[in-house]
Amino acid sequence: MINKKGCPYGTHRVIEPEGFLPQAAKKIDNNMEIYSNEILIDVKTLNVDSASFTQIKNSCNNNIECIKKTILSIVKEKGKLQNPVTGSGGMLIGTVKEIGKDLKTDLKVGDKIATLVSLSLTPLKIDEILDIKIDAEQVDIKGKAILFETGIYAKLPDDIPEKLALAVLDVAGAPAQVNKLVKPGMTVAIIGGGKSGILCTYQAMKNVGKNGKVIVIEYSKENAQKIIDLNLAHHVIVADATKPVEVYQKFTEVSELADVTINNVNVEGTEMSSILITKDEGIIYFFSMATSFTRAALGAEGVGKDVTMIIGNGYTKGHAQLSLNIIKESNEIRKLFESKYC
Amino acid sequence: MINKKGCPYGTHRVIEPEGFLPQAAKKIDNNMEIYSNEILIDVKTLNVDSASFTQIKNSCNNNIECIKKTILSIVKEKGKLQNPVTGSGGMLIGTVKEIGKDLKTDLKVGDKIATLVSLSLTPLKIDEILDIKIDAEQVDIKGKAILFETGIYAKLPDDIPEKLALAVLDVAGAPAQVNKLVKPGMTVAIIGGGKSGILCTYQAMKNVGKNGKVIVIEYSKENAQKIIDLNLAHHVIVADATKPVEVYQKFTEVSELADVTINNVNVEGTEMSSILITKDEGIIYFFSMATSFTRAALGAEGVGKDVTMIIGNGYTKGHAQLSLNIIKESNEIRKLFESKYC
Repeated sequence: MINKKGCPYGTHRVIEPEGFLPQAAKKIDNNMEIYSNEILIDVKTLNVDSASFTQIKNSCNNNIECIKKTILSIVKEKGKLQNPVTGSGGMLIGTVKEIGKDLKTDLKVGDKIATLVSLSLTPLKIDEILDIKIDAEQVDIKGKAILFETGIYAKLPDDIPEKLALAVLDVAGAPAQVNKLVKPGMTVAIIGGGKSGILCTYQAMKNVGKNGKVIVIEYSKENAQKIIDLNLAHHVIVADATKPVEVYQKFTEVSELADVTINNVNVEGTEMSSILITKDEGIIYFFSMATSFTRAALGAEGVGKDVTMIIGNGYTKGHAQLSLNIIKESNEIRKLFESKYC
Repeated sequence: MINKKGCPYGTHRVIEPEGFLPQAAKKIDNNMEIYSNEILIDVKTLNVDSASFTQIKNSCNNNIECIKKTILSIVKEKGKLQNPVTGSGGMLIGTVKEIGKDLKTDLKVGDKIATLVSLSLTPLKIDEILDIKIDAEQVDIKGKAILFETGIYAKLPDDIPEKLALAVLDVAGAPAQVNKLVKPGMTVAIIGGGKSGILCTYQAMKNVGKNGKVIVIEYSKENAQKIIDLNLAHHVIVADATKPVEVYQKFTEVSELADVTINNVNVEGTEMSSILITKDEGIIYFFSMATSFTRAALGAEGVGKDVTMIIGNGYTKGHAQLSLNIIKESNEIRKLFESKYC
């Protein structure tokens, strides 16, 4: 262990360009001797970001050896697994191997954890790639990684299958933000009924209580029917969220405008639907990475809507535990997700 | 007058594609017979959006006749002045000519107003272009325009020069949002000390009161000195907001982290500076159209910062009056702006 503290954000490991943070840096120091406020992790599996894995896979024509080589060369060059084309990283799971003496943490050596900060800023050294699971976009390795003082993580629970836990942790921020925003008696719109949308719907139903209302807007009839069958929301509307007038009409047929709207749809052009179905002085939470800042900003101004529009933050206190608890509480959601992710 | 109401959002005037709102539509109906909830305006000047005007000007090599032709042909084709390349519009000033009988409004025929919704969604008919002021990016015309029921506007005050009022109304949303967010005793960071930044700084100083603190971060030494000379803030830091580590260090030398950070910088890559100087559970308000949704979202997650990041909404109740009041209250700001915009 190096007998001094590094910067909480990891800038002490940035090699170039100077003055940048690890995520924006081209190359970071992946020497595995830790500073006194870092954590060393024995890595088991890299859960590569979907955009990154797809890009590497396609550029390799699905050839496993080529994918291996590409991953090894990125990490060798950058000291981290950050796809140079997509800029994205992923998460990892592993075991705590060493904890810096100056770090306050509830972890102990041997704990199994998932890192919740991106691989795009995590110092990583790969000794050997053991296996590549193309469908799961996961890479089993022998190697090590470092977590900075501000690096966030979740202990992996014993009672949830690892892959299910990973799938849930991947979108943990969404239901946690719903928990912060939604109060009893509110009307809540959830646009997009996928993994993240279902977790948000569950949390919203819990928070609005008896006098509130939760309405899901989902593109696929099949998915919508699943949500109806499992009785997860008060109303489920089948509509195309890229068509604001259609969404507005169908929504106002079943409800007054929403106090809070949560957008989880990973396609472009759904900002205006979100704005139209939200009441004046309401809140719109954009969790979709397909959100356009300017479309949202100009869209609200264009219709004179006094709404607060929030940029989805994947991190909020207690988000990992909250999302894993949903899986423990709801047998319906657990079964639905197990059939998909296990 | 047509004896029926149109849709408050103006969809009744969308010609193609069906199901779209006027802003996203390719062509809208600019027949100047109003529906019973619309307002007809005698237009005096089009204040063309800067991005749009620059694009037209450059494609015309500064040739006035070519600029005229381009503007006329856009409006003829689309029924509105929406630049097909930039997608943006602008504002207009004019006089109220007719008010639909079913519309509740405090306006009367003859009032001089500025529209605060974009020209990119405003039905417009140009009879003649009278003059083009290249430097001011303004076009004097003979023509008419229509304001929908949800269309917002401001009455032009008698005691503020028209051009100064227009310059202020252009960014009216920013200080109004500051007024909603900033409470007594808070520490507030304003990134960018231009027109919008100065209005925000003034409002923040007013709201934080005796026990609060307002810190401006400005790139240009000259601008920074003006803000210091006019005594507009508690601290002014000269720093490059695209360099988060530099900004963080300089900021923490003079202050604890900010409760509220307002970003007004119209250059790319300033999200991370905003995130680093804001405290956990603080609020960041992005007013800059150069903000990247994904850089903000992934940036906060990457450093494990539990901040609320808000997408700037140019509209909030009372924003026009609030921003014009600043000009009436502050002689310093009025003089500074007059030297620039009058």
